[in-house]
Amino acid sequence: MGKIQRRKFAKAAVGGIAATAAVTTVATPAISQGRQEWRMVTSWPKMFPGGGTAAERFAKNISEVTGGRLTIKVFAAGELVPAFEAFDAVQRGTADCMHSTPYYWQNKAKILSLYTTVPFGMTNNESVAWLRYGGGQALWDEAYAQFGLKGFHAGSTSVQMAGWFNKEIKSVDDVKGLKMRIPGLGGEALRKLGATIVNLPVGEIFGALQSGAIDATEWVGPWQDLAAGFYKVTKYYYWPGMHEPATLNEITVNKAKYESLPKDIQQIFAWACGDEHSQLTAENDANNAGALEVLIKQHNVQLKKLPDDFVKAYGAAWGDVLKELRDSGDALTKKTLDSYYKFQREQMAWTRIGLQEYLNARLIGFRFT
Amino acid sequence: MGKIQRRKFAKAAVGGIAATAAVTTVATPAISQGRQEWRMVTSWPKMFPGGGTAAERFAKNISEVTGGRLTIKVFAAGELVPAFEAFDAVQRGTADCMHSTPYYWQNKAKILSLYTTVPFGMTNNESVAWLRYGGGQALWDEAYAQFGLKGFHAGSTSVQMAGWFNKEIKSVDDVKGLKMRIPGLGGEALRKLGATIVNLPVGEIFGALQSGAIDATEWVGPWQDLAAGFYKVTKYYYWPGMHEPATLNEITVNKAKYESLPKDIQQIFAWACGDEHSQLTAENDANNAGALEVLIKQHNVQLKKLPDDFVKAYGAAWGDVLKELRDSGDALTKKTLDSYYKFQREQMAWTRIGLQEYLNARLIGFRFT
Repeated sequence: MGKIQRRKFAKAAVGGIAATAAVTTVATPAISQGRQEWRMVTSWPKMFPGGGTAAERFAKNISEVTGGRLTIKVFAAGELVPAFEAFDAVQRGTADCMHSTPYYWQNKAKILSLYTTVPFGMTNNESVAWLRYGGGQALWDEAYAQFGLKGFHAGSTSVQMAGWFNKEIKSVDDVKGLKMRIPGLGGEALRKLGATIVNLPVGEIFGALQSGAIDATEWVGPWQDLAAGFYKVTKYYYWPGMHEPATLNEITVNKAKYESLPKDIQQIFAWACGDEHSQLTAENDANNAGALEVLIKQHNVQLKKLPDDFVKAYGAAWGDVLKELRDSGDALTKKTLDSYYKFQREQMAWTRIGLQEYLNARLIGFRFT
Repeated sequence: MGKIQRRKFAKAAVGGIAATAAVTTVATPAISQGRQEWRMVTSWPKMFPGGGTAAERFAKNISEVTGGRLTIKVFAAGELVPAFEAFDAVQRGTADCMHSTPYYWQNKAKILSLYTTVPFGMTNNESVAWLRYGGGQALWDEAYAQFGLKGFHAGSTSVQMAGWFNKEIKSVDDVKGLKMRIPGLGGEALRKLGATIVNLPVGEIFGALQSGAIDATEWVGPWQDLAAGFYKVTKYYYWPGMHEPATLNEITVNKAKYESLPKDIQQIFAWACGDEHSQLTAENDANNAGALEVLIKQHNVQLKKLPDDFVKAYGAAWGDVLKELRDSGDALTKKTLDSYYKFQREQMAWTRIGLQEYLNARLIGFRFT
C-alpha cells in the first residue's frame, strides 16, 4: 500500500469514529421478527485482498442464504474500531463478530498464537486436523470462553514468506539490531536473536518501512505482499517462512450472541466458515504463484533463502520461548502445548513419508503435456 | 469419451429408463409440502471409515439443518446399486446423489481422473485452488453436465501410500507381470511398465489379495488400509504415493434435482460439501499418524520406499499416458489438460519455496516442549 492509500486509510480511520457514533444512535442491532443485524469488525483495510475481501464475501453470502434472518455488515479496520481492537469490540458487544487472526491477541493470552501459527509448527492441514480431530477446537473454545468469544478457523495463508529486508541476511549475526515488524510468538523468538520487534497492522507497515522506522517486515505471501507494495521500498524477499507455516484466519463471534441464534443458523454459520477456510486458502494459493512472477519479473525483487545457520539459531531461540511459555505456570497453556506438540510429532512422522516425500518424488518424476 | 465408452453410455441410458420405472413404483421420491427425500448411493461398504462414515455424517447434518426440508438416506455399496454403478444410478435418477470419487468413472471419460488425482499431479490444496480459482470447477461442470450431473469436492485422503505388495520392489523390473489393483490413470501408467491392472471396490480387495488373484493393491493410507485389514495377507507397505497425491472425494448430485431445490438449500448443500472437504481431510490426516504406528508396531508391517529408478520409469510411463490422452482428439480433454498443467506448473514454483522448503527447514529447526 503506497503513501496515498495510507493517507486515505488514516482519514477513513478518523472518519470512522464519527461514523460509529452516528450508527449507534440510528441503528441499534435489530432483533425483530427473528431477524438479526450483526456488525463484523476486521483487522484489514477495506477490501484488502485476502482478509478484507473474504470478510465481505462471507457477510454477503450469510445474509443471502439466511434470507435476511441474519445480516452482517462489515467494518474495515478503523471504521468502527482500530485493527487491533477488534477482539475487545466483540468481547464488549460493540461488534458481534470479527475477521482477524488469533495471534494478534497474544497480549490477552500468549497461547492464542497456536490458533494462528507458531515457528516450526504445524502446516495448515495439520493444524486443521488438530482443531477438528486432535482436541484443538475444544482447547480454543476453553481459551476464548474466558473472553466471552467463540472462534472458527476460516482461511489460511499457507506457508508465508520470511519477509522483506532492506539488507541481505548472510548469517544469523545480521539479525542483531534489526528492527522488524513480526507479530506473535515468532517475533518473540526473533527478539532473542537480538532483533527489535514491533507489531503493526498492515495499513501502517508500508509507511514504517519507507520512513526507516523499521528495517524489515513480514506480512503474508507474494499475493498480499504485492498488494501492500513493499517492493517499492525494499529489495530482498526471503524464504522459507518457518516463522509462520500455517497462519489461520479466524471468524470469531460473541459467544452469547452466537448462542442466541436459531440452531439452524448456527450450523449454517459454522459451515460457511468451514467452506471459507477452503475458499480463502485456495485464493491465497492460486494468486501467490502469479504474484511471485510479477514481483520478480516486473519489480526486480531479489528472492533469497535464509541461511541454514539462521534456521538453526531461530529454532533454538524458539525452543527457549516455548520453554518459558510452558513454565509460565498457567494450566491451560501447559495443557494446550502438550496437546499441540503430541499431535505435531505424530503428524510429522506421517507428513514425512506422505506429503514431504511425495513433493521430493514429484521433482524427479513430473511430466506435463 | 472414446467410441466404446459412448456406446456403453448410450446402452446404460436406455437400461436406465427401465430401472427408473421399476423404482418409481415402489418408492417415488417424495416432494410434498416443500420437503424432498433424497437417496445417496456410495462406493463404500456401510460405515467404512472415511467415505462410508462421511456420507452418513453429511446426510444426517443436512437433514437436521434444513429442518427436514431436504432429508438424505444413505445406501452403502450394494444396498441399492453396486459400488461402481453409483454414477449411472444418479444419472438415471435411481438415486439423487452419491459419495464417491471421479476416477471410478473414467470408463465414461478418462479426463475425469483429474478431479480425483493423477500421478505426479497437484496436491490436495493445489487441486482445490485449481477448482476454486483456476477454472477447474467450470471444466468439471462442463464434463459432468454431459451426464446430467454436478460434482462437489468433499474430502481428500491427502497423499496416499503407494500400496501393499506381496514381494519386495527392488527395481522397476519387479513390476513386470505384477497383478495390481490400482484405479484411474495411475493404473494405466503402471500397465505400461508391464503390470496387469484391475480395479475393484474396497469390499472385494481383501479377498482378491488373499486368494492370490492379485499380487498387490493400493487403497488409501494407514487409517483406511488398517481398517481394510491388508496387513493380514501382505508384508510390504510402500511409499511415496506418487500415483495419488490428492485423491479428492466427490459428493455429486443429479443436476436437475439439485437445481429444483430452493436456492438457500442449494447454497447450504454446497457449503456443507465445502466444510466436509476440511472435515474428511482432517479425519484422514489425524488418523493416519496413529494407524501407521499400529501397523508397524502391532502388525509388524514392513514400511519401504519405492526405488528411484521406479519413480523415474513411472514418471516416463505417465508422460506417455498423458500424451495419448492429449492426442485423443477430444476438445474438452485437451482444454482440461491445458488448464490443469498450466496451473500445476505455476503452483509447483510456489510450493517449492513455500511448503516444500518449509518442511525441509522444519526438520532442521523443530523444537518441542
